Amino acid sequence: MAGTGPVDLRPVFYPKRVAVFGVTNTPDRVGYNVLESILHGGFTGKVYPIHPRHEQVLGCKVYKSLEDVPEPVDLAVICLNQYATVKAVESCGRAGVKGVICNAGGYRETGDVGHDLEKCLIAAAEKYRLPMIGPNTLGMINNDGNFYSTFYPLKIPAGKVSIISQSGGIGLTTIHMAIDEGIGINKFIGVGNCSNLGFADCLDYLENDDSTAVIGVFIEGAADAGRFVRTAGRVARKKPVVVYKAGRLAEADYYTQTHTGSSAGSFQLYRDILHQHGVFTVNSASELVAACKALALQPLPEGNRVGILTHTAGPSVVMIDHLAPAGCVIPPLHEETVSRVKQIIGSDNPPVVLKNPLDAAGLGFSRPTYGGLAEAMLADDNVDLLLAVYCLHKTWELPAIELINAHKKYKKPLIVNFVGNWQGCRADQDFMQNAGVPLYTAPEKIAVAAAALVHYGMRRKGGNDRDD
Amino acid sequence: MAGTGPVDLRPVFYPKRVAVFGVTNTPDRVGYNVLESILHGGFTGKVYPIHPRHEQVLGCKVYKSLEDVPEPVDLAVICLNQYATVKAVESCGRAGVKGVICNAGGYRETGDVGHDLEKCLIAAAEKYRLPMIGPNTLGMINNDGNFYSTFYPLKIPAGKVSIISQSGGIGLTTIHMAIDEGIGINKFIGVGNCSNLGFADCLDYLENDDSTAVIGVFIEGAADAGRFVRTAGRVARKKPVVVYKAGRLAEADYYTQTHTGSSAGSFQLYRDILHQHGVFTVNSASELVAACKALALQPLPEGNRVGILTHTAGPSVVMIDHLAPAGCVIPPLHEETVSRVKQIIGSDNPPVVLKNPLDAAGLGFSRPTYGGLAEAMLADDNVDLLLAVYCLHKTWELPAIELINAHKKYKKPLIVNFVGNWQGCRADQDFMQNAGVPLYTAPEKIAVAAAALVHYGMRRKGGNDRDD
Repeated sequence: MAGTGPVDLRPVFYPKRVAVFGVTNTPDRVGYNVLESILHGGFTGKVYPIHPRHEQVLGCKVYKSLEDVPEPVDLAVICLNQYATVKAVESCGRAGVKGVICNAGGYRETGDVGHDLEKCLIAAAEKYRLPMIGPNTLGMINNDGNFYSTFYPLKIPAGKVSIISQSGGIGLTTIHMAIDEGIGINKFIGVGNCSNLGFADCLDYLENDDSTAVIGVFIEGAADAGRFVRTAGRVARKKPVVVYKAGRLAEADYYTQTHTGSSAGSFQLYRDILHQHGVFTVNSASELVAACKALALQPLPEGNRVGILTHTAGPSVVMIDHLAPAGCVIPPLHEETVSRVKQIIGSDNPPVVLKNPLDAAGLGFSRPTYGGLAEAMLADDNVDLLLAVYCLHKTWELPAIELINAHKKYKKPLIVNFVGNWQGCRADQDFMQNAGVPLYTAPEKIAVAAAALVHYGMRRKGGNDRDD
Repeated sequence: MAGTGPVDLRPVFYPKRVAVFGVTNTPDRVGYNVLESILHGGFTGKVYPIHPRHEQVLGCKVYKSLEDVPEPVDLAVICLNQYATVKAVESCGRAGVKGVICNAGGYRETGDVGHDLEKCLIAAAEKYRLPMIGPNTLGMINNDGNFYSTFYPLKIPAGKVSIISQSGGIGLTTIHMAIDEGIGINKFIGVGNCSNLGFADCLDYLENDDSTAVIGVFIEGAADAGRFVRTAGRVARKKPVVVYKAGRLAEADYYTQTHTGSSAGSFQLYRDILHQHGVFTVNSASELVAACKALALQPLPEGNRVGILTHTAGPSVVMIDHLAPAGCVIPPLHEETVSRVKQIIGSDNPPVVLKNPLDAAGLGFSRPTYGGLAEAMLADDNVDLLLAVYCLHKTWELPAIELINAHKKYKKPLIVNFVGNWQGCRADQDFMQNAGVPLYTAPEKIAVAAAALVHYGMRRKGGNDRDD
């Protein structure tokens, strides 16, 4: 954000009194939905809906203008068209509002006229040093304060992962995938056109936000790419930052310019610089969520040596495909571990190849055996984190308790892949994740989760990324 | 399969009388589970469990040996250890059984001794020209005949997609993902070590299997790679074949050798040759399922020109990232379409950029508007297939009927991405897919689905792949 010195963003994320411009009784209008979001989300502060001609919307008294509101507000959510939004921002500045969220599109992403209008909007905000989220944004959610101001009324589980997204659609995709993965969202910030508050400002804020443990970012392109990557790199030293950069092609670049008015820029250059700054990057929304989930639930490993326990070999092959390029190694097991494994499975059993990945074949279906093998591998000094694969089976229960106990005993990171469908694994997912053990059902997700943990584990031990 | 002339595999996939070697009353043994699979799966033929010392298992009379079974059987499922399996195959050959499935591992994947044993197993099968699935396999499912012979008792929705998998774990992953994606499986063949029946034999069979419309393949490596790719290419001229090849690294290669005794070989070479033969390849199990789903539900497009309709731009950027490298183009809209779109959205509405991707922004939330825009784009001669994105919203229903109607009217392929979580989209997924419109919730899946349709659409029009 332009101006002299940092602006306090806490009133934007944790407002006590909120004005909503442009509320109406029409359910397909943004103003109606933002107000419903705020009410539905359980906001406990005061809401002041504003519209010159309405008396009541959704049971709330409506004020004719900001001047009619009886007390100062912290935040204004502006649900007006692009022209009226500029005037509303002016009035907010005059009234001493501490932050605004501007939903309207119709600015630089639409061409020259819109670009000039956006300059007016920015000037209005900067004149009053008014932090502004957007324009052209779905809005913001602070689940830590039950403050929902997106124009999609939602209620999502609370947790430690915060998301910064340039796109409402991919932001929502991420939120819904997080619901499916059983993890909670702390804050969601749709940065939109990043006209005043950009990625770096949001990262700066989240760096010191104690309720955020992991930050996920979806970016198409940013005007201040240099500041973004430097800030991401700095913040990533304090808490994990995972970045999904889209717009890797000239075709996409053409399109991002009419999305948020940004140029997607050189995809590879972005990736390379993010890596140089020690930031973990992924290739899809589902990988973004998978990585954030592991980072939110698990301790970081001491190193990059991955143990794999399974009773079916194929998923290990798939995992290794993903793990090796991410700098993970699959170390040999200690002799002591091999002896322990032999003891657990017995000598008269079908041949199990005693190496890492450890494939227990049919023997692995005995839950005590599986739990014992998981313990043996976690006890191995060669193993920094363990990936455990188990197949859903009509006759047998999943070894959820055994794995949780093994994790508790050895404190090392443990990631589980249960081969099963959504319905079949949901109860175990909740159960295990409440105990801090992330559960996935796709081998490519468990691999990206492991790679993310290893990345930040190694970084904590002192990576050689740029420091500037 | 070695030998002179083709062997009839129909008795293997559609047996009327089945023997199961090695059934016991112990629920964690393969023999128990295979029998339970057969019973639980609703097989209507006759089952003859075999064990020298049991009288009854799971309510079925047990026979002491194959010789004691009162009538000839078509197929034997052998749930014995690796040594006893060889003898059982011999006895099956002598008794005129028409096919065997061998579950046991412990052959070439375990080293030299196992390799010699596998030679004996192959010799036994070939002596009697006995088609053999496995060894070292999860088994086979023919959902078209309610015949389940895997040692994971399952009951899965029936459909038109058949899966050939070298790995039980990835095979099951695929099956469970198919359940989540709401599509049915026709046949599942775990080829295991491919000692006698390999990928090419299974493809040969499925080529002429009328109940199979699409074939998905998971392969680590095959001894007869040349025959596999040639056969896949030939079959892919008749019905779509989608291949996920794993084992792209030396690390994985080391591991695949102790999995099914195969060398994963050069990953890139495999991919290149498959492409040369016109076979569509993917990068994960979830992409395999996403591609097979679209191919099973949709007609093939006439060309590679993709229209995108959305009310949120981010997913389009992500899709284009995936579509462009797959040879899809995002064509401009006809002038006529632009006029039609203007008429639908009205002239006094917020600026919608009239191009492809068409982002209707807030207006798109009106279901009739969204349906009208979908129709306008499908009517455009420039558009061969349409991708439609819509976000789940508390206040509004998803435009499922509108999209189904548009699809019915124009007959062109239509793929839908509803941004939502599993629970929120499940009913619409079932509803739309019953009407032949595939629904996804991840932009990367809709993109791979579109790429698969375009690939086989272009191929039908005459691709220039090798013909040998």
